[in-house]
Amino acid sequence: MGYSNNKIIVDFEPISRRVQLSPEKTFYEILLDTGIKIQSLCGGQGTCGKCTMKIQKGNQFLNPPTNSEKKSIDRKKLEDGWRLACQAKLDEMKKAQIEKKNAPHIRVFLSEELLVEDFKILTHGISKQVNFSPAIHKIYLEAQEPSLVHNKADFERIIHALLKKYPVLSKNEIPSIELDLLKNLNDQIRRNNHKLTLTFLDNKHIIDIEGGNTEESNFGIAFDIGTTTIVGYLMNLNNGKIYATASKLNPQTAYGEDLITRISFIKEKIDGLKKLHNSVLSAVNQIISKTCKIAGIKKSNIYEATIVGNSVMHHIFLGLNPVNIGLSPYVPVVKHGINVKAQNIGLDLGKNSNVYVLPTVAGFVGADTMGVILASQIDMEDNLTLALDIGTNGELVIGNKDILITGSCAAGSALEGAHIKYGMR
Amino acid sequence: MGYSNNKIIVDFEPISRRVQLSPEKTFYEILLDTGIKIQSLCGGQGTCGKCTMKIQKGNQFLNPPTNSEKKSIDRKKLEDGWRLACQAKLDEMKKAQIEKKNAPHIRVFLSEELLVEDFKILTHGISKQVNFSPAIHKIYLEAQEPSLVHNKADFERIIHALLKKYPVLSKNEIPSIELDLLKNLNDQIRRNNHKLTLTFLDNKHIIDIEGGNTEESNFGIAFDIGTTTIVGYLMNLNNGKIYATASKLNPQTAYGEDLITRISFIKEKIDGLKKLHNSVLSAVNQIISKTCKIAGIKKSNIYEATIVGNSVMHHIFLGLNPVNIGLSPYVPVVKHGINVKAQNIGLDLGKNSNVYVLPTVAGFVGADTMGVILASQIDMEDNLTLALDIGTNGELVIGNKDILITGSCAAGSALEGAHIKYGMR
Repeated sequence: MGYSNNKIIVDFEPISRRVQLSPEKTFYEILLDTGIKIQSLCGGQGTCGKCTMKIQKGNQFLNPPTNSEKKSIDRKKLEDGWRLACQAKLDEMKKAQIEKKNAPHIRVFLSEELLVEDFKILTHGISKQVNFSPAIHKIYLEAQEPSLVHNKADFERIIHALLKKYPVLSKNEIPSIELDLLKNLNDQIRRNNHKLTLTFLDNKHIIDIEGGNTEESNFGIAFDIGTTTIVGYLMNLNNGKIYATASKLNPQTAYGEDLITRISFIKEKIDGLKKLHNSVLSAVNQIISKTCKIAGIKKSNIYEATIVGNSVMHHIFLGLNPVNIGLSPYVPVVKHGINVKAQNIGLDLGKNSNVYVLPTVAGFVGADTMGVILASQIDMEDNLTLALDIGTNGELVIGNKDILITGSCAAGSALEGAHIKYGMR
Repeated sequence: MGYSNNKIIVDFEPISRRVQLSPEKTFYEILLDTGIKIQSLCGGQGTCGKCTMKIQKGNQFLNPPTNSEKKSIDRKKLEDGWRLACQAKLDEMKKAQIEKKNAPHIRVFLSEELLVEDFKILTHGISKQVNFSPAIHKIYLEAQEPSLVHNKADFERIIHALLKKYPVLSKNEIPSIELDLLKNLNDQIRRNNHKLTLTFLDNKHIIDIEGGNTEESNFGIAFDIGTTTIVGYLMNLNNGKIYATASKLNPQTAYGEDLITRISFIKEKIDGLKKLHNSVLSAVNQIISKTCKIAGIKKSNIYEATIVGNSVMHHIFLGLNPVNIGLSPYVPVVKHGINVKAQNIGLDLGKNSNVYVLPTVAGFVGADTMGVILASQIDMEDNLTLALDIGTNGELVIGNKDILITGSCAAGSALEGAHIKYGMR
C-alpha cells in the first residue's frame, strides 16, 4: 500500500503492519479490525492498563491522555509517548492539520509483552554433520586423603588423581584454576570425602568444581542475535544433542528497527550504547532461563555460550561502540573472536563460564556469516556454491574451498513483507 | 626478665618489650619511662585522644574508662579493650586480686599509628646477579588510518602494525586483548592519531593501551609479606632498577603476633579470614601508594606484582583458608603458583595488571623460601650450601644443584630479642 496524499497511514512496529487510520476509532479498535491480537483484560474499557504502546511518530495529533491513562502510566512515560491503545485516537481538532501534511503518518510501537501471538522464527532445519568437539569437559576424580606421609596440598592431591586417571598428561600440562574455586576448596574436598567433579575449559583451565559425580550435567548454549530476533539453543556437551530452543524479539527494536537507526541512537544519546547493550543482555538471559526450565537443568551447569550476530549486534552485545561501522570506511572495532567470562559480561551462567563471540568478517558481514560458513562447510566445497542468510539484514557467501566472497544488504523490508498485510510474519 | 610470682608484668606488642608495672602510673607514663615514643599531642592530659592502645589481656584489672576515654573512643571499641594510654592504669581495688594470680600479666597492643619511631626492617643487602626477564613489555606502534581500500578493524590495524614492526611474529601468535580495552578503542585510536603504546603480558596478552609513546613508564612491584613486616620494592621493568622501597608493620599483628594465633582467629571468628585478608591488602595498597609517590609514577603504570610470604601469609593474602595448615597433617590448599588480576584481588594497580603469587613448598615452608632459592640460586651450587631466612618465622634450605631440603621453625621470639630491653628492634 503506497502513501495517498490525504489518507492517514498507521505503521504498527515491530511487526511491520501498515493500515489506514479510521479517525473515529481508538487504536485498540484499529488493532482488532486488523486482526492483531493484543493483551487486554478489560476489553478496551481503560481499566486494566494492559494495552500500552508507544507512539513513535505523530503523538501531537492524538487526543490528550485521558484520566485512565494518567492512572496507569507514569508521567515520564506519558511524556515519552506511551499510551493505552483503548484510549488513544486521532484528535478531531487536529485532523485537518495532519491531513494537510504530505503523506500523513503515525508510527506505533507494540511491545513484545503486548502481543498475544508468539513471535515466530525458524529455529530448525536440515543440518550438515559437523565434528563435535566442545571446549568443555567434565572429569570425576577421587583424590587421596592427606596424611603425614602423603601431605600434598588439596589442589595438588586433585592434580595427582587427574594424572593417575590420565597418565598421558605430563606434569608440564598442569591445568590452571580460578582463584574463587580455591577459596572454597579446603571445605568442599573434605565435605565430599575427596570425591569431586572438575570442569575443564580447553583441557587446561579448571572453571568449576562440584562435589560428587556430576559429569552428566554438562551444557553449552549457542545464540544467534539477529537485528529483530534472538534465538538460543541449549546443547548437552557430552552428546551434542539440543535439549531446548527458545526465541525472543530483540528488545532493541524498541529503539529502532534497523541497524542504522540504532547506530544513530548510540551516537545521539549519552547512554545509548548502555541501553541497547543492557536490553540485548536481558533478552539473552531470559532465553537462558527459559531453556533451562524446558530442559530442567541448572544455569550453573552451562559452561560455555557461543554468540553470533551481525557486526552491529556483535559490537553492542560486547559493549563495543559500533558508530564507525555506520560511517565510511565502515570499520568495526575488532574482527577477531573474543573470549570473555560470563560474569564479566553479565551473562547468567556459571560464574567462570566462557562466552565465545565468533569473529566477524567486515563492517556489515558479521559473526553470523562466520556461523553460516562453519555450519554449511561452504569452505570445503569443490564446486562454486552460494550460501544465503536472509534476515532483517541479508548476507551472502559465494565460493568454494579456494576462495570465499561475502556481501550484505538490508533484506528484511524487501523480503519479509514489510508494510503488506500478508507478509511473512 | 622472668616471671616473679607477685610482680605484675606488662608486655607491649608488637614491639616485644616487657616491663614491670608501676601500679600508680598510667600506661602513658610507663611507656615514657621505658623509652618507647608514642603519639600524644596533649602530653598525657586526656584531651587529644591520640594515645589509643588495645589491652589484649588483663583489662578487667584496670580502672574503668574515664570520661576522656568515653569521649574519644566509641563504645564498641571500649568494649573490645581499647583505652587511652594516659588514662588507663591498674585499678587500686583490684591490685590484690591480680597479684594473687600465678605470673600476673597484662598484654598491651600498640598500633603502628601510635608508635612515633619508624618500624625498621632490612630492605637492602648484597644481591647475586639474576637474569632479568620481566613478563611485561611495552611496545609503541603507529597504526594505519582506515580507508575504503584499507578498511581493517581498529584492533586488526594495530596487529598489522605490530607484525610489521616485529616480522618474526607469525599470524598464529596474534595476542589476545582484554574486552574493556576494546570498549574504549574506537575513540582512543582516533584521538591519538593512531599512535598508541601497548602493554603485553607474557608476549601474548594485551593488558593496557595508552595514547602516544609511554614505553618509558613500565613498572613492577615485588612484595615480601612477612608475619610481622611487609616490604615492597618498586622496579622499573625496562632496566631492572629499584625505584623505591617501603615497608610497613603487617597490620595482622593486631589479631595475633604468631601464625598459630592468627589461624585460631580465622577458625573462631566467622569473618576472621576476611578481616585478616582485608588488613594485609590495605597495607600492601599503602605501600603501593608510598612507592609511587617516592618514584613519582602512576599506579596504573605498575603492570605486575609478585608476592612471596610464608604459607599462612600466602593463603590469607589470596583469601584462602589456612586452617588445615595448623592441623596435622598440615596441608595447604594449594602449592602451585597463582596468577590473578589485580582488580580481582583488590590490588590498587592497573585494572588488568597481573598479580603473581609464587608457589609454596609445604605447610610451613612458603613462597618466601621459593624467593630465597631463586635469589640465592642455591639450586645451582655445586657444593652443599645452607640458606637461612630468619624472620618471625625462620626457614632454612640446605642442598645444591642435586637436592634441596627445607625446614622451618618459629624464630622471631628466639632471635629477634623478644622480651628483652635491648633486643633487635
